[in-house]
Amino acid sequence: MKFQVSCELQYEVRMPTTFIFNILVSRTSSQTVLEETLTTNPVLPLEEFTSQNGETRFIRLQVNDKIKFTISYKATVDLHYNMIDPKHLLTTIPVNKLDADVIPYIFPSRYCQSDKLQKLAVREFGHITNAYAKVSAINEWIYNNVEYHPGLTTSSTSAHDTITERAGVCRDFAHLGIALCRALSIPARYFTGYAYDLHPPDFHACFEAYIGGEWIFFDPTKLVPANGLVKIANGRDAADAAVASIFGNTTCMVMNVKCESLEETFKPYYIHDADKQKGLSYQ
Amino acid sequence: MKFQVSCELQYEVRMPTTFIFNILVSRTSSQTVLEETLTTNPVLPLEEFTSQNGETRFIRLQVNDKIKFTISYKATVDLHYNMIDPKHLLTTIPVNKLDADVIPYIFPSRYCQSDKLQKLAVREFGHITNAYAKVSAINEWIYNNVEYHPGLTTSSTSAHDTITERAGVCRDFAHLGIALCRALSIPARYFTGYAYDLHPPDFHACFEAYIGGEWIFFDPTKLVPANGLVKIANGRDAADAAVASIFGNTTCMVMNVKCESLEETFKPYYIHDADKQKGLSYQ
Amino acid sequence: MKFQVSCELQYEVRMPTTFIFNILVSRTSSQTVLEETLTTNPVLPLEEFTSQNGETRFIRLQVNDKIKFTISYKATVDLHYNMIDPKHLLTTIPVNKLDADVIPYIFPSRYCQSDKLQKLAVREFGHITNAYAKVSAINEWIYNNVEYHPGLTTSSTSAHDTITERAGVCRDFAHLGIALCRALSIPARYFTGYAYDLHPPDFHACFEAYIGGEWIFFDPTKLVPANGLVKIANGRDAADAAVASIFGNTTCMVMNVKCESLEETFKPYYIHDADKQKGLSYQ
Amino acid sequence: MKFQVSCELQYEVRMPTTFIFNILVSRTSSQTVLEETLTTNPVLPLEEFTSQNGETRFIRLQVNDKIKFTISYKATVDLHYNMIDPKHLLTTIPVNKLDADVIPYIFPSRYCQSDKLQKLAVREFGHITNAYAKVSAINEWIYNNVEYHPGLTTSSTSAHDTITERAGVCRDFAHLGIALCRALSIPARYFTGYAYDLHPPDFHACFEAYIGGEWIFFDPTKLVPANGLVKIANGRDAADAAVASIFGNTTCMVMNVKCESLEETFKPYYIHDADKQKGLSYQ
Repeated sequence: MKFQVSCELQYEVRMPTTFIFNILVSRTSSQTVLEETLTTNPVLPLEEFTSQNGETRFIRLQVNDKIKFTISYKATVDLHYNMIDPKHLLTTIPVNKLDADVIPYIFPSRYCQSDKLQKLAVREFGHITNAYAKVSAINEWIYNNVEYHPGLTTSSTSAHDTITERAGVCRDFAHLGIALCRALSIPARYFTGYAYDLHPPDFHACFEAYIGGEWIFFDPTKLVPANGLVKIANGRDAADAAVASIFGNTTCMVMNVKCESLEETFKPYYIHDADKQKGLSYQ
Repeated sequence: MKFQVSCELQYEVRMPTTFIFNILVSRTSSQTVLEETLTTNPVLPLEEFTSQNGETRFIRLQVNDKIKFTISYKATVDLHYNMIDPKHLLTTIPVNKLDADVIPYIFPSRYCQSDKLQKLAVREFGHITNAYAKVSAINEWIYNNVEYHPGLTTSSTSAHDTITERAGVCRDFAHLGIALCRALSIPARYFTGYAYDLHPPDFHACFEAYIGGEWIFFDPTKLVPANGLVKIANGRDAADAAVASIFGNTTCMVMNVKCESLEETFKPYYIHDADKQKGLSYQ
Repeated sequence: MKFQVSCELQYEVRMPTTFIFNILVSRTSSQTVLEETLTTNPVLPLEEFTSQNGETRFIRLQVNDKIKFTISYKATVDLHYNMIDPKHLLTTIPVNKLDADVIPYIFPSRYCQSDKLQKLAVREFGHITNAYAKVSAINEWIYNNVEYHPGLTTSSTSAHDTITERAGVCRDFAHLGIALCRALSIPARYFTGYAYDLHPPDFHACFEAYIGGEWIFFDPTKLVPANGLVKIANGRDAADAAVASIFGNTTCMVMNVKCESLEETFKPYYIHDADKQKGLSYQ
Repeated sequence: MKFQVSCELQYEVRMPTTFIFNILVSRTSSQTVLEETLTTNPVLPLEEFTSQNGETRFIRLQVNDKIKFTISYKATVDLHYNMIDPKHLLTTIPVNKLDADVIPYIFPSRYCQSDKLQKLAVREFGHITNAYAKVSAINEWIYNNVEYHPGLTTSSTSAHDTITERAGVCRDFAHLGIALCRALSIPARYFTGYAYDLHPPDFHACFEAYIGGEWIFFDPTKLVPANGLVKIANGRDAADAAVASIFGNTTCMVMNVKCESLEETFKPYYIHDADKQKGLSYQ
């Protein structure tokens, strides 16, 4: 499944500022980067470094002068995903069987205060025994109970706010999904990427839950097809995977994001539509 | 309907301390105090003052020495309540028809942050058109979704906490009920009193919503009969009507509370049981 | 001291909406309304009602059609204030000597969670024995530690947020001042009014603390002279005294506010400048 | 520097429960485990796994029966620490020079909401240029402004609570120190261990800040000597390094913790006492 993604970000810098960008697509066993270019205008020295597991790739950029600059990225990516029969997603892996590298994803994090949502999660979803059905119910609940409303929330907004205030954007929806899963001891992680057919175009945030030994994809916004996501990063939450972490003083002037399918035969798959019972995993 | 109520509170005082007690039963058009005695041991000078509407009666007590003291109160009260046909409770009084003295009860207060719960309240209850049915649904929702669990919450706990953490005591249940009503522009106020058949015996907190021109009684804990409450105070929330507001340093050593019916024919009326459709008002 | 104040507010209404405006100047023993006019365009029926003590005057307006309308108010006011020698402001009135009508102002309220700030307030200000010096220190601390920054806070922002986030507007500054006073058992209340020499012109929010038997004026923003305030309302906090409480769906299109001195000899008095030691009271 | 540490924890289990314990001392380049024994009574199968960097060692234990059990651990450890001349600690490493594995420690986490404390941190500590002096000032500020008060906080308490409520235990002190450092772009991490001369004996929590290329030790409680800590774990905060994470229903009945020096010549070094200017690092 080939996609071409790109982004162009322009900043006006007012004092020496360090940027850590999270815009490069990740390299995973199921996502191959066929071609990519990263440029800045004017030309600025930049440095790439990766997360501990080597998948997520960060760009660090130091700007010392008062300038405007543009960072542009373009990549062609071949990605695979699996459609998984729900028969294989029946059971939650109990905590005592989880792999060590999955365990961090059952603990609360900055924007996903699962420890505060346990009674609520058990009341709402505790009676559902099938693990995939349980997370699907969480996803559906968020879609039905939280208003997609750009402009109301900030980068400090967390699942603990959203469960009460019931409004937000993709990032807030994902954080709430993650928090509710973890409150039920289901590992869940943040997923940020380029999304096919997102209007208006932007980076997108969703989440993955660990069910039946697979990281299954969920998107409580239901804004895009589930099979059109090119992954940038996973993380515990947006604290691990912000598009841009900025240390200094700057304003973002322009943000253009694109994600196009390079295959005529690409068939968008909307989980909520048709065949609700099938899970989708990017790994 | 005659009740005998009493309480005995013992404190150990460690530095000069001012107490404002809210333990005297209120004098309203529907609640007559037939007899009452208030004593302290040792004898301490105390002062009674009333709220602006003259109904709630506070006791102020200054203790300057390091002593233990007991304050004891006993009253015989004759109270009336009305059972109201739901036909008269069909409509919410719109804000533009509310009496000026009711308006303060649509605004948020310390423990009832209705401004933060508007979207949630509209999603959950906005579709119910009948006003009495709407508040009954709020009452039922709290009963079903919040765990009665002494010891988890403190005097700083508010509706904004309880809507997420889903556990608390009568005070927390009442605050949440009030906040959800106000979020829907239904005036609601805190009600504290002596309660018949409460186990273990204690002061009790409930709420009243203003429907069809009447203050209708609700108790989301469902712990006591609705017709066995002897009112101590109304207020916006517990900030107006705490049993004891203490300025200084002291420990409560003993708290005994009682509420007994003086009529053999008294029939407890449980709203949630039988005849759910009938409203009850103490005014 | 004569002032002329005016405001003009324009709204676009999209569904039946009730407005409660708090824009009329209050009538108190020290503030006389010499002349005033209130009009709406188009002409709409409106109703005035007052707070329990009769000082604050609210306007209620019901708009049922999809229209734009303007509400305009203009008043000439004669007001008195007292400059008070700090000798009379030495002592905090202890809680056991407070008049009953002052007591509500020692309790926490929606935007002034004084119960959560007690240890902080005692640490920062508890060592100051003179009551006026204590509240002056609170005022100064807020001025020095909170950034005046329009646009960061909302109508849900409270003192509990501001003490941590350290940014806000006049309303947030006032709430924090009130909360810190109450945390030290000093009664404090919200004060909203028209302010001379405020740039850009707007309604202004400040606070009053009850010291030596007087309500002493404080303004931690230091944006305006202390003797140029024409009072609209007092209240526990902005929940009691919002400029406009709106039940419905509308957008404010225009807001013009003015406050001019009608006396050539008017001398602005800046508390923080010159003669810091003198208190000012509007009652 | 040889220490003998031990702990004994007893639990009563009421339903199938998974335990993840964090009680084994960590294996680092500067901390060698000479001898250790871990037992349970009754004998239960347990599994050890390590964090991604291999230093922190977790024990996972599954109990399916309603039993009481005891887990006991004892270790002899040889540890090294460095006293570092402040000349080497003059400068904060700017974000653009930080190693990739340190970067996660500048981001906010569950209990350390540094994003919310930036203005406060800059106001209080931003003027201090020397990095070590800056974190020392943070440490001192916490010691002076937060009351050590067991019993007021819970496992949900975070730095965002403590900065306002000003009371807590070692864990809360550490979280606040970490949050304030990160708010100033100084990497900081949680440190939990066995502590010499802690009364009453317990596990202890402190923090490390990354200054001049070293992880420098800080303890805002000032309860123990800085050179008597045997490390169990590092992490972003207590979410990574809780003594016991429990999935199920159980009660801790007994907790005994010990930490003794095995060297007669051991000289406790109290940072706050004598030679304030010297930093101490365990790595």
